[in-house]
Amino acid sequence: MMKLYYAPGSCARASHLALREANADFELQIVDFATAEQRQKTYHGINPKGRVPALATDRGVLTETPAILAYIAQTHPDASLAPLDDPYEFARMQAVNNYLCATVHVAHAHSRRGERWADDPASIAEMKRKAPEVMADCFQLLEDNMINSPWVLGDRYSTCDPYLFTITQWLPFHDIDVADYPKIAAHLSRMLERPAVQMTIEVESAA
Amino acid sequence: MMKLYYAPGSCARASHLALREANADFELQIVDFATAEQRQKTYHGINPKGRVPALATDRGVLTETPAILAYIAQTHPDASLAPLDDPYEFARMQAVNNYLCATVHVAHAHSRRGERWADDPASIAEMKRKAPEVMADCFQLLEDNMINSPWVLGDRYSTCDPYLFTITQWLPFHDIDVADYPKIAAHLSRMLERPAVQMTIEVESAA
Repeated sequence: MMKLYYAPGSCARASHLALREANADFELQIVDFATAEQRQKTYHGINPKGRVPALATDRGVLTETPAILAYIAQTHPDASLAPLDDPYEFARMQAVNNYLCATVHVAHAHSRRGERWADDPASIAEMKRKAPEVMADCFQLLEDNMINSPWVLGDRYSTCDPYLFTITQWLPFHDIDVADYPKIAAHLSRMLERPAVQMTIEVESAA
Repeated sequence: MMKLYYAPGSCARASHLALREANADFELQIVDFATAEQRQKTYHGINPKGRVPALATDRGVLTETPAILAYIAQTHPDASLAPLDDPYEFARMQAVNNYLCATVHVAHAHSRRGERWADDPASIAEMKRKAPEVMADCFQLLEDNMINSPWVLGDRYSTCDPYLFTITQWLPFHDIDVADYPKIAAHLSRMLERPAVQMTIEVESAA
C-alpha cells in the first residue's frame, strides 16, 4: 500500500485528491508542520528536502507534486487522469502543473516562507507585502491563457484539476477574491461538487 | 519542424541539448534578453509568460522545461532519454527535473530577478546576497541525495542530465566551485565529453 506524507491544506492536497480520484490503495501520514516535523531527522529519512508531499511506494519514495501526479495517473490508467497516449497533451498537462509548482506555489511561498531567500526581516516583510500582487498576476495569466472548460485541459479531467483546485483554495489567504477570475471560479465550484473533493476536504479537516 | 525559442546560456539550454541528443528535427530562434524581447507583444503571442524555453510544435507551443524535456523523450523513443516504460523511474526523473526547476532555478533567479518578488531595492539586494548560500544548499542536497553515477538516474542517461548540466554551469556566477560537489563535478566533466553538449555550447556561443 502506498503512503502519502502530507499536511492538511498544503500543496499535498493535490496528490491526496488525485489518489482518491484514482481509487488508489493508499494511507495518509500527517507531517506535523506545527512542530516543524518536516525539518526533523526522522522525516528527512523519508524526504531529505523536508517538504510535503512525499509518496512512499513499494519501490521507494517519490517527491514533487507534478511527478507524483503523473505517477498516480500512469499507474491507474482506468481513472483517466492524464492523456497517457498523447505526448503533446501530456506535455500540456505537465506544463500547467509545472507552472503551478514553480511559479504560482513559489509566489505563494514568498508570503509565508520568505526566510528561504532572505535573512533580513525587512526583506521578508517586503516579500510578504508583494506576494498577493504576484499571486494575482499568476491567476490572471492562468485565467487568460491556461484554463479551459469544464476542466483545465478542456473536456478531459486531468491531474491539473486537483492541483489548480488546491492552489485556488489559497487565494483567501492573500485577500484575493476568486470571483475576479470567472473561469477559475467556475472551476472551483465544479470541483467542490465532486465526491472525491468533498471526501478529501473532510478527511483533511478532521485530521 | 519544431522551433525552440531560447536565450544562450539560459535554462533553455537543457531543451536545446535534449533536442540534439534526440537527433530531432528542429530550428533555433533566439529571444533577445538584452532588448527584453521576452516581455514584448510579439513574443507574448508565442509564450504569454514571457519566458524561455518555448517549443513550437505542429500542434502548438509547449513551455516549462520539465514538460518539454519529457515531450522530447516521449516523441523520440529511440534516443532513450527517459524510462518511458517504467512509471516509477519516469517519476524519479520528473522529480529531479522538477526540483531543478522549482527550487534550484528559483534560488538562482533570486540573484538576478529579485524584482519578481519584491519592489524595494534593499530587499532585492538582500535576496541577491543570500542566493549563493541557497544555491550551495541546493547543490549539497543534489549531491547527497539525487545524483547517481555515471548519470543522474544511474546507468541510464536521461533528460535529468542536460538539465543538471545546464544549471551546474551557473555555479561560477555565484562564486561556487563545482569541486565542492564531487559527484556533480564528475557529471559535468562527463557531460562536456559528449558531442551533443559540445555542439550545443558551440552554437549558443556563436549566436
